[in-house]
Amino acid sequence: MAVVIPFEPAGEPSIERLSNLVRADLTRVNDLIVSRTGSEITMIPEVANHLISSGGKRLRPMLTLSTAALTDYRGEGHIRLAAAVEFMHTATLLHDDVVDDSEMRRGKLAARMLWGNEASVLVGDFLLGQAFRMMVEVGSMRALEILSTAAVVIAEGEVMQLAAAKNLDTTEDEYLAVIRAKTAELFAAACEVGPVLAERPKPEEAACRSFGMNLGIAFQLVDDALDYGGSRARLGKNTGDDFREGKITLPVILAFRRGNGEERAFWRRALEKGESADKDLEHAMGLLARHRALEDTVERARHYGAIAKDALALFPQGESKQALVEVVDFCVARAY
Amino acid sequence: MAVVIPFEPAGEPSIERLSNLVRADLTRVNDLIVSRTGSEITMIPEVANHLISSGGKRLRPMLTLSTAALTDYRGEGHIRLAAAVEFMHTATLLHDDVVDDSEMRRGKLAARMLWGNEASVLVGDFLLGQAFRMMVEVGSMRALEILSTAAVVIAEGEVMQLAAAKNLDTTEDEYLAVIRAKTAELFAAACEVGPVLAERPKPEEAACRSFGMNLGIAFQLVDDALDYGGSRARLGKNTGDDFREGKITLPVILAFRRGNGEERAFWRRALEKGESADKDLEHAMGLLARHRALEDTVERARHYGAIAKDALALFPQGESKQALVEVVDFCVARAY
Repeated sequence: MAVVIPFEPAGEPSIERLSNLVRADLTRVNDLIVSRTGSEITMIPEVANHLISSGGKRLRPMLTLSTAALTDYRGEGHIRLAAAVEFMHTATLLHDDVVDDSEMRRGKLAARMLWGNEASVLVGDFLLGQAFRMMVEVGSMRALEILSTAAVVIAEGEVMQLAAAKNLDTTEDEYLAVIRAKTAELFAAACEVGPVLAERPKPEEAACRSFGMNLGIAFQLVDDALDYGGSRARLGKNTGDDFREGKITLPVILAFRRGNGEERAFWRRALEKGESADKDLEHAMGLLARHRALEDTVERARHYGAIAKDALALFPQGESKQALVEVVDFCVARAY
Repeated sequence: MAVVIPFEPAGEPSIERLSNLVRADLTRVNDLIVSRTGSEITMIPEVANHLISSGGKRLRPMLTLSTAALTDYRGEGHIRLAAAVEFMHTATLLHDDVVDDSEMRRGKLAARMLWGNEASVLVGDFLLGQAFRMMVEVGSMRALEILSTAAVVIAEGEVMQLAAAKNLDTTEDEYLAVIRAKTAELFAAACEVGPVLAERPKPEEAACRSFGMNLGIAFQLVDDALDYGGSRARLGKNTGDDFREGKITLPVILAFRRGNGEERAFWRRALEKGESADKDLEHAMGLLARHRALEDTVERARHYGAIAKDALALFPQGESKQALVEVVDFCVARAY
């Protein structure tokens, strides 16, 4: 069967190399995802597939597949672990939308708008349960340990974010702790289980984990910047969603700290008190620009991206490594 | 250290024998529970302990401890699995209260009333993650398989209940399928992992599972009857909560099927349309009495209780077996 590689202008980073590398495996992962969202309770596949087949990039499962390839894993376990990682991610999204009262997700109505908060909570629980069941089927205790720890850390990160919500005194370090937990931990776990399945030496596991962790941080920071700059089509969310929900992200943390007293009063009023209007968003964008807050958020992302790439240094050059390096470039380049 | 056994009049079933049997182990489980709800994110232990230390009976973890004792398990794994079972149960309660918009739980305000739906969803996720982490630490693949499958089945049961909500055409069989999944499956899993840890022959595992499953069904049916008859102090909920929430439980299913056209119209109006008032509850109680719906619900519970007791037949007489038999009697006798 011929594989068609779409033309990609040189110099524009993409995840095309990664997609090609794991294409056959990813098809199997997608089949498994479909079969494991199946249930006699028809509401479960309806809700799950609304989100799962809504055009997510499958970035996290692709990381598991590609780190398994990078470390020459020859077994079958990576397929189930990749599907488990995607289920964990999807469960988090379903619960996040309830927690944030979000109306949109990936350019479609959030599941909670169509089936209610109840279904979103419960189908999230179902997917989390299925994720664990698939991990158990693989039978690797180390992989189970890594992914169950990730589940705990992610939930802690979400609660941390809730506790810090609307608190403009959050420092950059504190914010980084939140995104390490709520976003980057799953990237790290997804990457770590590849070499773990392949039973590679500890330094290779640590390298893959470090790659995933730093990629995850970069990914989230770029996402935060895009929330103030991306088009709706690009993100599947509206520009300024974070602002309207009073979310404290790095662009805001930077602009607040760099601002004068009057500007800080504006941020407090707009974000802490939840009184933000369209006019406020416009003003906020002006302040972000004045203080180069979006550019510097992306600069920070680039820093973590560089660490991610260096983490892979101990692996020999090859298609897998090149694909992973390009994912970092792609994640950072999304910001432009 | 002397153990004080409170005076218990002969003939009144209690869980005293079970409590005494597992007292030392249960203390260790409680310590583990406290240490595993610990987190630097202070909101997590606050929310978790509000519910965990609110006077639940710890029935499910006691089942794991006592089936481990019944099957002469000599290791340490039952402590962690018992704590994991309690965490799974607590996570379900936190999510249930969000799904049902409940205001009270065990005689106290529900966590969601104090910390919001967001915290209840996320701390539930945290506890579920911790439950899996503890199971992984025990290292029994079979126990992991049983408990992760239970997590999936419980979530399916909850969604089933959501899909059947306010549908008076639900049959007794359909209702039974819901409570098997949402309640009895965890009882079954809690009982099954005891002999699994002890590496006993399959028939003993199956016997313990069957005991737990049927006990769980009996327990839920009695709970359903108590909702229309228990005092608030006894249940920690208000009489008629299920009615006000439009929940279709077995007492209602029986009264609806046995009623005439006028009575059915009443049930439909009161439960399906959510227009029920105090006067309606009084009328509903009258209909339940006329059709002996509460008595017969308890009769059904007694039937499953009898199956549970027979399931233990292959174990020799002894303190553990006697304690488990008395739990069944206690669960059914709660109804009086």
